Amino acid sequence: MRNLNEGTITEEVVGRLAGCADPRIQQISTSLVRHLHAFVRDVELTQAEWTYAIDFLTRTGHMCTDTRQEFILLSDTLGVSMLVDAINHRFPDGATETTVLGPFYVENPPVKRSGTDISAGIPGVPLLVSGTVASADGTPLAGAIVDIWHSDQDGYYDVQHLDEIAGDHALRARFLTDARGAFSFWTIKPAFYPIPHDGPVGQMLEAQGRHPYRPAHVHFMIAAPGFETLITHVFVDGDPYLDSDAVFGVKDSLIRDFALQPAGTAPDGREMPEPYHHLHYDFGLQHHAATRAA
Amino acid sequence: MRNLNEGTITEEVVGRLAGCADPRIQQISTSLVRHLHAFVRDVELTQAEWTYAIDFLTRTGHMCTDTRQEFILLSDTLGVSMLVDAINHRFPDGATETTVLGPFYVENPPVKRSGTDISAGIPGVPLLVSGTVASADGTPLAGAIVDIWHSDQDGYYDVQHLDEIAGDHALRARFLTDARGAFSFWTIKPAFYPIPHDGPVGQMLEAQGRHPYRPAHVHFMIAAPGFETLITHVFVDGDPYLDSDAVFGVKDSLIRDFALQPAGTAPDGREMPEPYHHLHYDFGLQHHAATRAA
Repeated sequence: MRNLNEGTITEEVVGRLAGCADPRIQQISTSLVRHLHAFVRDVELTQAEWTYAIDFLTRTGHMCTDTRQEFILLSDTLGVSMLVDAINHRFPDGATETTVLGPFYVENPPVKRSGTDISAGIPGVPLLVSGTVASADGTPLAGAIVDIWHSDQDGYYDVQHLDEIAGDHALRARFLTDARGAFSFWTIKPAFYPIPHDGPVGQMLEAQGRHPYRPAHVHFMIAAPGFETLITHVFVDGDPYLDSDAVFGVKDSLIRDFALQPAGTAPDGREMPEPYHHLHYDFGLQHHAATRAA
Repeated sequence: MRNLNEGTITEEVVGRLAGCADPRIQQISTSLVRHLHAFVRDVELTQAEWTYAIDFLTRTGHMCTDTRQEFILLSDTLGVSMLVDAINHRFPDGATETTVLGPFYVENPPVKRSGTDISAGIPGVPLLVSGTVASADGTPLAGAIVDIWHSDQDGYYDVQHLDEIAGDHALRARFLTDARGAFSFWTIKPAFYPIPHDGPVGQMLEAQGRHPYRPAHVHFMIAAPGFETLITHVFVDGDPYLDSDAVFGVKDSLIRDFALQPAGTAPDGREMPEPYHHLHYDFGLQHHAATRAA
């Protein structure tokens, strides 16, 4: 109880959790203490390094605002987000693979009709996105909620420069699938981009000798009653960062050719005076019951 | 590089550190990734728990101000601070034992002459603190810098209610030792107190079924050229929380009887019209070279 030393302190801290009423909180707290202490012992963390860590975490917290989530960036760049994702999505074939949420999702995006152009005048090469949503066995899901968000061709999301955005959102919307489970919209082609690296996480990446880039992608969050909400991206084939994504999120099944199409009548009937890209993806959702099955 | 799963992601993240120019940063980053991932795997952290953790860390960061350090409280209550302290202070006999800094130290406290009353009118039972500073082999150290800080009898430090404190500080000062290595001052006797528990760390302690109390103590930080800066407390013997300190900092060698003395002439010559407590402690500092010797 007193005179704790390197050899005894971990068991004392774990012992203090004996009165924890919630067994899951006790389990997580116990494991956290053991692994955190093992890390400190492993590297023999100095007082100066501890002080740096406290300051790093404090600055990371102070960087967080309604539109900037530095702790998610930290989790993403340490591979923690993708590991949590993998553990929680041991899905059978037929379901679309998952990947990280990232820091730029905004809850309750504006609902738009299929076919809407959501580029809000931001310059870029036009992109038609079309897709279908079905259960893992192929049954189309009508009325599924499809939230999408992506960066512009300079790598910025609307929330990073809201003062310049007419209507407070762009390259971000919610669609509902039709009776065949389909949806589509017009936007601009995203580019690869660095994650925000003007904060503590950027300093960490630089100190670690790592680049901050993510390959170009469109985010999707798809929800339907009775199914696990799907959080994923679709990546642009040929991107130079597909094999070194700063947040470890790329899966082959999520890469698509955003094929360049000639000017003319697009698949949704729109007359395009200039060439445009077209992304099509067929999403498969997993029934709730299968969650976390090994 | 792509299609990372539970089994492959950790080595991929560690592999990304190959370009790290600083071997110590590489070592710490590698160990952090391995232990953090081991924790996530061990408990099979759910997405909801990950989201809670991101929010918990964000709230912890937002709680931090110039006078409130919630991440130090988190480190303290998880036993990390004391473990770091133990690893970095494997000192031979003669040196005073160390303990956590805590969140209430303020750099460059006001310098006072020995014998000054630093209670600033805050009510409490008078306490005379006297001490000496010497090297571990007993040689007195003149001109050593002795920073002290402690709570009032309600458990509050000055920085927790600065608006009520005349002169912006109280129960906090810096003294210089005299030719014999001695210093003394008057203050009021501290009481046991809960660490600030109106924030995320308080919620964590409650969820873990733990109390937030620390036994009564006076903090000391003592610096002298050529010696390791000593960070320690002296605890009040008989305190009900000596065996369950919320931050694991109690050592027998740091407990003293703050003996109640009758009214009359105090050891420093002051005429005391009422009874007072007296704490005396002889501190031993360790030469720089011995730091971190096993």
